[in-house]
Amino acid sequence: MRTILIRGGWVLPLSEGGKPLQDGMVKIIGNKIAAVGPWREPVKEAEPYEVIDARDRLVMPGLINTHTHAAMVLFRGVADDLPLMTWLKEKIWPLEDRLTAEHVYWGTRLAINEMLLSGTTTFADMYFFLEEEARAVEETGIRAVLSRGLIGLEEQAGKNLEEAVAQAREWRGRAGNRITMMLGPHAPYTCPPAFLKEVVAAAKQYQLGIHIHLAETADELVEIGKEYGIRPVAYLAEQGLFTRPVLAAHAVWLDDGEISYLARQKVAIAHNPSSNMKLASGIAPVPKLLEAKIPVGLGTDGAASNNRLDIFTEMRTAALLHKVQTNDPTVIPAETALKMATIYGARALGLGDVTGSLEPGKSADLIMLDLKKSHLTPLHDPVSLVVYAARGSDVSDVMVNGEWLVQEGRLVRWEEEEVIGEAARCAQSLVKK
Amino acid sequence: MRTILIRGGWVLPLSEGGKPLQDGMVKIIGNKIAAVGPWREPVKEAEPYEVIDARDRLVMPGLINTHTHAAMVLFRGVADDLPLMTWLKEKIWPLEDRLTAEHVYWGTRLAINEMLLSGTTTFADMYFFLEEEARAVEETGIRAVLSRGLIGLEEQAGKNLEEAVAQAREWRGRAGNRITMMLGPHAPYTCPPAFLKEVVAAAKQYQLGIHIHLAETADELVEIGKEYGIRPVAYLAEQGLFTRPVLAAHAVWLDDGEISYLARQKVAIAHNPSSNMKLASGIAPVPKLLEAKIPVGLGTDGAASNNRLDIFTEMRTAALLHKVQTNDPTVIPAETALKMATIYGARALGLGDVTGSLEPGKSADLIMLDLKKSHLTPLHDPVSLVVYAARGSDVSDVMVNGEWLVQEGRLVRWEEEEVIGEAARCAQSLVKK
Repeated sequence: MRTILIRGGWVLPLSEGGKPLQDGMVKIIGNKIAAVGPWREPVKEAEPYEVIDARDRLVMPGLINTHTHAAMVLFRGVADDLPLMTWLKEKIWPLEDRLTAEHVYWGTRLAINEMLLSGTTTFADMYFFLEEEARAVEETGIRAVLSRGLIGLEEQAGKNLEEAVAQAREWRGRAGNRITMMLGPHAPYTCPPAFLKEVVAAAKQYQLGIHIHLAETADELVEIGKEYGIRPVAYLAEQGLFTRPVLAAHAVWLDDGEISYLARQKVAIAHNPSSNMKLASGIAPVPKLLEAKIPVGLGTDGAASNNRLDIFTEMRTAALLHKVQTNDPTVIPAETALKMATIYGARALGLGDVTGSLEPGKSADLIMLDLKKSHLTPLHDPVSLVVYAARGSDVSDVMVNGEWLVQEGRLVRWEEEEVIGEAARCAQSLVKK
Repeated sequence: MRTILIRGGWVLPLSEGGKPLQDGMVKIIGNKIAAVGPWREPVKEAEPYEVIDARDRLVMPGLINTHTHAAMVLFRGVADDLPLMTWLKEKIWPLEDRLTAEHVYWGTRLAINEMLLSGTTTFADMYFFLEEEARAVEETGIRAVLSRGLIGLEEQAGKNLEEAVAQAREWRGRAGNRITMMLGPHAPYTCPPAFLKEVVAAAKQYQLGIHIHLAETADELVEIGKEYGIRPVAYLAEQGLFTRPVLAAHAVWLDDGEISYLARQKVAIAHNPSSNMKLASGIAPVPKLLEAKIPVGLGTDGAASNNRLDIFTEMRTAALLHKVQTNDPTVIPAETALKMATIYGARALGLGDVTGSLEPGKSADLIMLDLKKSHLTPLHDPVSLVVYAARGSDVSDVMVNGEWLVQEGRLVRWEEEEVIGEAARCAQSLVKK
């Protein structure tokens, strides 16, 4: 097996108690991390090895995007600055009705370009045409947690669930274990009780997690309250949802009792600060969620409501937003934001043993940042630099599962321009129709 | 005089009523914009001309940073996630006490690197060692509005004011009119009444504007209230400050009456969303300020509280922050955010006739964005793309006053690495002492 020794100007392990290492080393054997520590010249290795001199770079775990709808990049900028329901009903849903498998394939490919180039090595998705998404993930080398979005109100909801289960069984663990599958009932307000119970039963039978939108807007509270007389968390609890591992996206509108309850149920939360701000959905109680030891990852949501898929942006935005929200500048310090983007995100996806930190035995999912830049000077504190000053465009190299996908700021396994061209064509055809 | 014709894939004039132009043209003669319109092949020109093919780029006015302390880039990341007063008193002020002219020169040079590379062509500054700053501006080719920060409580305050006036008279209009001078009394809580009256008298005598921090924190209201029994705006009004053109930074804690008053007094405001969030200072009432027709520009503040000098970040942050703050996703739409970063910013600095839009007669201060990128695909709406999706790193070319300072993403008139090296050395020596 191939051995790679990376000598990094700085290495941020993000492991428990793992402090930033100046002149550090990451040793990779095959597709796994074998060692992390201070740099030492290798004396002798049993097998041939390659040394990568990254003394002007910072090495850290790949970023985790815990909630997106990748192919929605095709709708980037098609509808901004609108109220949520106008945005959904008049713009997004009519466009989504026209989506074909080809659109979703090229949209996902474009999204993967953007995510890899800005340092994301794992993303959790909920969308349609799951086979196309899975194929894009398999072909490109990125890691993903995929779920087909299920609208329980539709006539063919039962059939869709059956298909989703079959797809989950087919794709789970594929692509060298880079693909994890979940079930994706869309939201409390699009999934009636009987349907959710079916989802829970299927998830139990096939040992699948559940990815769902939860308490995104104040309107959702009103709607669920009118329909069922309870709040969204209680509504999902009644259907038994929390007997399964749940990844809840947004979780903006929670009270203190619900936070305790979700913590006890070991629910994970995907926090999407940009999307929640842009759609004026509200501000999730992230400091309280973290205090309750809930695993909180960061998500971009779809590019139609962001309009980026850049976890660097979400890290910084999360760190700033909760300070001003709580009137406390010590809230979500840089290190916490960085953990949300890496190890907490991995745990939120049930991948805490696989990725999210640089530790022996974990998959070699890592990124490097080019530090020789004006806006990354001086380097007083590498963690602060990554969270507050660095941008996605500072990512120079990306490795997933031991494979280099980005080197020197460029995608190495396919032509970026080809994907841009195909995706732009798809986007045009959707809007023009 | 040299004539340049830029053929842009998109041109955003940002002039009154000037819509985005697909396949547009900007004509530059000497250091001025001569024409903006749809592209036409030039038939004949009296003098030789150069055509720049920017069909895969977007051309727009250079960005305006209306409030910063440039040399504070040396303190980037030295102290984060702290309460404002701890941050200032225990970290920033002791470091600033050690600053020398050399530190400020190289700090300013580093800041200018960062600003140019992320598309800022004009910045308004308040800091110490003004001669060094002015020299850096003169040498590099950027446009600036400079003011020496004046602490009225210091023993030598009167002497400092005299020096500041002499510097203002010496440097105003220098460097091909790229330098504008203001007086910079630091803030209501650092400038007693008698001192402010002296500043106003000097500003009147020499026809200078005034750059001041105003109502940045709730503490400031308490402090000024205790000392003078009134609010900061009234306090400044009593000293006659608003008889001069005033650029007020922050303006977070204003009531409706103060907003009307500032509008009537034609006060301009520099809004610093990232800094106000990071220091948990509060959220300025920007939608109301704009409604009152106050010219509101965007500022980064110093890099110690941001930690960037990137107006793309401030544009996006402003657009998102006020949506979630007001619970209204239609607030600060993309076009408004873009105007705050360009023409409104120029007006806020009293440079509305000089820069901030692409219009005949204005200085040729413009930037280009490279559109051939995954995260800038598709292009449904160029204004949305610039505000929500683009990053400072997408800037490929920057012209100030008719001179190219950045081409193909690189500084063309000096070595970026040399400045990085000198600034890093200065930053180290400051922190180690």
